[in-house]
Amino acid sequence: MTIDVIMRLGPIIPVIVIDDVAAARPLAERLVAAGMVALEVTLRTPTALEAMAEMARVPGAIVGAGTVVSEAQLDAAIDAGAQFIVSPGLTERLGCAAIERGIPYLPGVATAADIMRGLDLGLDRFKFFPAVASGGIPALTALAAPFATARFCPTGGITAATAPDWLALPSVVCVGGSWMIAG
Amino acid sequence: MTIDVIMRLGPIIPVIVIDDVAAARPLAERLVAAGMVALEVTLRTPTALEAMAEMARVPGAIVGAGTVVSEAQLDAAIDAGAQFIVSPGLTERLGCAAIERGIPYLPGVATAADIMRGLDLGLDRFKFFPAVASGGIPALTALAAPFATARFCPTGGITAATAPDWLALPSVVCVGGSWMIAG
Amino acid sequence: MTIDVIMRLGPIIPVIVIDDVAAARPLAERLVAAGMVALEVTLRTPTALEAMAEMARVPGAIVGAGTVVSEAQLDAAIDAGAQFIVSPGLTERLGCAAIERGIPYLPGVATAADIMRGLDLGLDRFKFFPAVASGGIPALTALAAPFATARFCPTGGITAATAPDWLALPSVVCVGGSWMIAG
Repeated sequence: MTIDVIMRLGPIIPVIVIDDVAAARPLAERLVAAGMVALEVTLRTPTALEAMAEMARVPGAIVGAGTVVSEAQLDAAIDAGAQFIVSPGLTERLGCAAIERGIPYLPGVATAADIMRGLDLGLDRFKFFPAVASGGIPALTALAAPFATARFCPTGGITAATAPDWLALPSVVCVGGSWMIAG
Repeated sequence: MTIDVIMRLGPIIPVIVIDDVAAARPLAERLVAAGMVALEVTLRTPTALEAMAEMARVPGAIVGAGTVVSEAQLDAAIDAGAQFIVSPGLTERLGCAAIERGIPYLPGVATAADIMRGLDLGLDRFKFFPAVASGGIPALTALAAPFATARFCPTGGITAATAPDWLALPSVVCVGGSWMIAG
Repeated sequence: MTIDVIMRLGPIIPVIVIDDVAAARPLAERLVAAGMVALEVTLRTPTALEAMAEMARVPGAIVGAGTVVSEAQLDAAIDAGAQFIVSPGLTERLGCAAIERGIPYLPGVATAADIMRGLDLGLDRFKFFPAVASGGIPALTALAAPFATARFCPTGGITAATAPDWLALPSVVCVGGSWMIAG
C-alpha cells in the first residue's frame, strides 16, 4: 500500500492524541464506522504506541504513527505495527530512513525548498503543516503551483467548517484534523 | 551577465506560463517593447522550452527558465538556450548544480535558513516566494534585516497595484508577476 | 552556562543594534539595572564586536552576538568575548560549528523541518524568527505542539504590549526585542 492509496481511503485522516489505552479501540471503531479508516496516532503521549497497536486490531483500520521526528521513533513505530508514518517536517535523514524501511511516509512541508527536497528523495505526497498558521489556502495554492505532481494532506487548524474549502483545492487529496474526536 | 545585472534590467520580471508556442514570440515582443526585457518562462507546460527558444529570438529579450526543480530540468533549460534560471526553492543540490554550470541563478527562499544556505553557496540574490502568502512586505522586511548583502525579487501574489510598495523596500531590486500578461 | 540557563536569566533579551561604541557601556548598565542581563548585540554594524566587548565589562551582563550567519562571524564573535551566539536561521554547517566550539547557541527556526534539523544536532532551544511575520502566536503554538522538549525565544515584531502574550505560551522561555532601547 502506498501513501497515495492511504491518503485516498477517505477525505479525512483523524489525528489522534491519546492518553488512555483503554479508550483507543472504541475510538477507532467509532472512527472506522464513520468512514475514517486511515488513523494517525501521534507519538506525543507515552501510551501512543500501545494505543496504536490496540487500534490496529479494529477490522478495516489502517493505523499510522504521527509526530515521528527521529529514526528511533520511526523504528519503534514500525515495531509497534504502524502501517504508515507521518512527521511534522522533512529532513533528508528521516526521509532516507523511512524510504529505506519501505514504509509509506507522509512528511510535513511548509516551503518550496521542503517540497524540492522531498522530490529529490522521490517523495511527492506531503502533509502541509501547520496548514492554517503557514498561511492557509492561499499559501498552499501558491506553493503547490510549481509542483505539478505533488499532492497534499493539509493539517493544523482545519475544522469541520473549513475542511471542504481545503478539499476543493486540486492539489489536496485529504485533510488531517482532530475536530471529530473532541466533538 | 550576472543574476544581479539581469535583476536590474527593469523593475518587473514577467512570469510567463505559456501553452501556445505560436503566441510566444508576439508576447515577448510586446513585453520587450513595454520595457520588460528579462522574461521568465516557467517550465509548467510541455511547450515551455520551445516557447522560450522562440522568445529568445526577440531582439533585446533576455529569456530565462522558471520553475526549475531538478538537475535534469536545469540542463534541459540550458540546452534550450535559457540565459538565467529561477527555482521556487533552494536546495544545496540544485544550487551547486547551477553554480557548476555557470549560469545566472535566482533561487526562491522563504526563511532565514534558506537565505543562510544560499550565502553558504555564495548566492545572495533571491526570489522571495511565495511573496504574499509567506507574510508579505512585513515578512520580507523582517527576513532581509539580518542579511545586509542580500537582494530580492519578490514573486507570488504581487499585482500592478502592490508592486510599487514592494519595489520601495531597500532590499528589493525587482518583482516577478504575471498581471501584465493576463490583462 | 547552557543556552537554557541564559534564556532563563530574565523574560526579555534585548536585541541591540549599535553604531556608537561610546554608547555601548551606558546602555548595558541601564539594561542590567532594569533586570535584563542577557544582551544580544547584532553583528549588523561595523562596531558591533567592539561594542560587545565594552558591554561585557558591565558587572552582571552576559553578552552574546546576534545575526551570526557564518563560521567566520562565529569565530570573530567568540574571539571578541561573546558568551552566547544567536543566528537568524539554522544550517547544519553553522550548527555543527557552534557545537564544536562549545558555545551556547540559539539558532533561529521558522518551520518544523528547521526544528527537526536542530533536534538531529542535539539542539532544542530555538529563536522563533521572524516571530510575528512567521504567523505569530498561532504559528508558534502549532509548530511547538509536536516537539515536547523544544523551548523558544520568539523574536521579531514583538512589543512591550505583546510580550506578555508570547511569554504565556508554555513553550516560550523568553522573548527578544528592541522596544526597550528605542523607548
